[in-house]
Amino acid sequence: MVRIGIVGSAGRMGQALVDAIADAGEALAGGADKGDDVAALAQRSDVLVDFSSPHALEANLDAAAAAGVPIVVGTTGLEERHHYLCDNAADRIAVLQTGNTSLGVTLLAHLVREAASRLGEDWDIEIVESHHRMKVDAPSGTALLLGQAAAEGRQIDLSAHSERGRDGITGARARGAIGFAALRGGSVAGDHSVLFLGESERVTLSHLAENRSIFARGAVRAAQWLSGRSAGRYTMAEVLDL
Amino acid sequence: MVRIGIVGSAGRMGQALVDAIADAGEALAGGADKGDDVAALAQRSDVLVDFSSPHALEANLDAAAAAGVPIVVGTTGLEERHHYLCDNAADRIAVLQTGNTSLGVTLLAHLVREAASRLGEDWDIEIVESHHRMKVDAPSGTALLLGQAAAEGRQIDLSAHSERGRDGITGARARGAIGFAALRGGSVAGDHSVLFLGESERVTLSHLAENRSIFARGAVRAAQWLSGRSAGRYTMAEVLDL
Amino acid sequence: MVRIGIVGSAGRMGQALVDAIADAGEALAGGADKGDDVAALAQRSDVLVDFSSPHALEANLDAAAAAGVPIVVGTTGLEERHHYLCDNAADRIAVLQTGNTSLGVTLLAHLVREAASRLGEDWDIEIVESHHRMKVDAPSGTALLLGQAAAEGRQIDLSAHSERGRDGITGARARGAIGFAALRGGSVAGDHSVLFLGESERVTLSHLAENRSIFARGAVRAAQWLSGRSAGRYTMAEVLDL
Amino acid sequence: MVRIGIVGSAGRMGQALVDAIADAGEALAGGADKGDDVAALAQRSDVLVDFSSPHALEANLDAAAAAGVPIVVGTTGLEERHHYLCDNAADRIAVLQTGNTSLGVTLLAHLVREAASRLGEDWDIEIVESHHRMKVDAPSGTALLLGQAAAEGRQIDLSAHSERGRDGITGARARGAIGFAALRGGSVAGDHSVLFLGESERVTLSHLAENRSIFARGAVRAAQWLSGRSAGRYTMAEVLDL
Repeated sequence: MVRIGIVGSAGRMGQALVDAIADAGEALAGGADKGDDVAALAQRSDVLVDFSSPHALEANLDAAAAAGVPIVVGTTGLEERHHYLCDNAADRIAVLQTGNTSLGVTLLAHLVREAASRLGEDWDIEIVESHHRMKVDAPSGTALLLGQAAAEGRQIDLSAHSERGRDGITGARARGAIGFAALRGGSVAGDHSVLFLGESERVTLSHLAENRSIFARGAVRAAQWLSGRSAGRYTMAEVLDL
Repeated sequence: MVRIGIVGSAGRMGQALVDAIADAGEALAGGADKGDDVAALAQRSDVLVDFSSPHALEANLDAAAAAGVPIVVGTTGLEERHHYLCDNAADRIAVLQTGNTSLGVTLLAHLVREAASRLGEDWDIEIVESHHRMKVDAPSGTALLLGQAAAEGRQIDLSAHSERGRDGITGARARGAIGFAALRGGSVAGDHSVLFLGESERVTLSHLAENRSIFARGAVRAAQWLSGRSAGRYTMAEVLDL
Repeated sequence: MVRIGIVGSAGRMGQALVDAIADAGEALAGGADKGDDVAALAQRSDVLVDFSSPHALEANLDAAAAAGVPIVVGTTGLEERHHYLCDNAADRIAVLQTGNTSLGVTLLAHLVREAASRLGEDWDIEIVESHHRMKVDAPSGTALLLGQAAAEGRQIDLSAHSERGRDGITGARARGAIGFAALRGGSVAGDHSVLFLGESERVTLSHLAENRSIFARGAVRAAQWLSGRSAGRYTMAEVLDL
Repeated sequence: MVRIGIVGSAGRMGQALVDAIADAGEALAGGADKGDDVAALAQRSDVLVDFSSPHALEANLDAAAAAGVPIVVGTTGLEERHHYLCDNAADRIAVLQTGNTSLGVTLLAHLVREAASRLGEDWDIEIVESHHRMKVDAPSGTALLLGQAAAEGRQIDLSAHSERGRDGITGARARGAIGFAALRGGSVAGDHSVLFLGESERVTLSHLAENRSIFARGAVRAAQWLSGRSAGRYTMAEVLDL
């Protein structure tokens, strides 16, 4: 039984993690929040799962490294320097950082990369996502993650080939562009579709999240997989053996 | 057998109309294009179908009125003064002007109006459409037509409640807004979906055009229905008895 | 504040009703299960909601009638004699019996009836539904309810025009048929789509349930609407003013 | 310029091939139908494309082999002995036989195999397809091809794990089953969706054919790829470098 410690246990994701750990038959080593002693939590854990905040990331990585335990980082809103911190910590412990812990989305990104690498530029790529009415940004981080996978498959730079927020007289579609569109409303937990639009045929690859439990479930599966691994930086794709 | 005259017969729509008239078992009275004598065409027609251009509209309406024959106006890109011309002509002949001659879209607009009038503001409305890569504007005229139907159902002003081209930090969705998103790519003839997103449930009303023949077919059905009608302004909804 | 009594309070639906009553700001009058005194519960309720079992229906209707309180019957698996019991009770109290308490499905059925009545037999009707892997029957009760709405719109008898379980050499589709298909898997709470497939165009009307809370929420809304009504048989459509 | 000879040129597919050869900038070597001299056609072709009938397959393979030209076999309704004939011919010439020449479907099958091999048995697989009202069998050959890809990914035998034509009291879904459902109506050229239904999330991989031109286009691309190849049996997957 893997002992999993939750950093950021007070939030909605923290409670979902508690449930997912129980469902997976693993042991909850405990939780820590702002002001709590993460070092002590790390000492009694086999692996940490961090869904706290970018501000706390450095301290959390330090605590994990000091205790010599792997850490899954699912915190969103990371910037370049946070990735640099993860790289550094990965010299001493196993670190798996990801923008989306869902197994389905991880697989979808893999399939999108594959499809984009096989279909030529005469297949236009469009990404459309739907989220609940309270979401404040567009496109979603997951849509961008899927766009990145498509860009990698095509060996192009995403930022130089994005078409976002189409409105008004846009002119014809740019060849090779990757388009993004965002729908908002209701309580949608997260729908993502990547469309490959060719001459007289279309291939669509989609993921639908029924609720947010999948992110906790995937994080626990990542923790199980990461427990006992040697130092290094890992990805969700490796958890699925992609 | 209704004798149908085509104004704007040289374009892609003109050829589709020729096929649709034959399929419907009606008679092609002839076609007219820039420089041709529309008045003579009107004289030998029971009804005219105009898919030419806004510039030609006034002359076409005059020709129809002089001959006393009804006219279906499917020309896109009309402005306020064109609608005024239609109203004027409708004092003397039957005029059916529409932004979309497809029977399916006409029905969809009716269902959207109905749904919007029954579901309260706690159901968010989003409209997403897909078109081929050559389309130069967004959202499509049909998406706006569906948005207008939703706004009528809700008894709100569409222009004051539209959210278009979401991108970046948008903030939470405005209560009562009608959102629009546009996908572009491949050879898509036209997909439109209107989503009603509520708490834990969603209703989606969609139309898919496999090709552009449906616009010609619907225009011919409108022409059949309009033939012999008395002066006045008519709509596609009446053709479907909605 | 309406006092709502739950008959069949021990099941999964019972707990969802307790939550929905609280969310709606109404009062929980109490719950009753097998062996409990429904008559006493009825005495202290303004309206009963029954999600127990067909076997208990007669006793529940009697208890409601004796207390003179309206009753919402959401129990599934009813047979003809149960509908007869509802009709009888409706001589003395308000009875609203329905196979699906979701507001979205109720609206969808209304739109399907409307679409089926407007589109001719050259538009083929297909109904496809998805449910979780534990569901033991097909098609779902809601799919049949939607098929019934389509049949009413077309003024045909559903049972004489159904095509179910297509497999093998089926021959061409029968003109005027209503087709049913069932997908099963995962934890799908319930997706239903009604397709109208015409020549080169398609209209699709869909409902997606994110989870089962919508059935409880709709039942509470029905209870609010039914409270204080005079004797008679009512429908979910009336709750939505359709 | 590749000289392509069409066997079975009189049918609907033959005309589509003529158009696709012109679109691709290749040369039409000629066409042959029942009674025509396929040997002579093979002599003046760089590659043959056969969409005739199973009965003619042996003679067509013989003609290709005698002339030493590769052959694309897109004929449907093949039985085991026809595959044996293809194997034999592949000793002398390049033979590419396929149940679906569309590039999009070929890619989709590849993605389905990949997804099925990565997701465990707790993800249920369902395949749903839609075709026009005249189609006489179900499920479609392409649906079975996709089911076969899923079965290969899972390393199971498709025929032992299929659930087809669900209707009535079916019991809960069998673990590891692959389900099939068929919708029929209108003029649908061919929609196929493969659903992977997991706990609280779903991945859907879809293909939509706007019309049948894609089969001709894919066959021409296969012919271009096959022209000049040495003897052996090839697949559409190789054309896409999958």
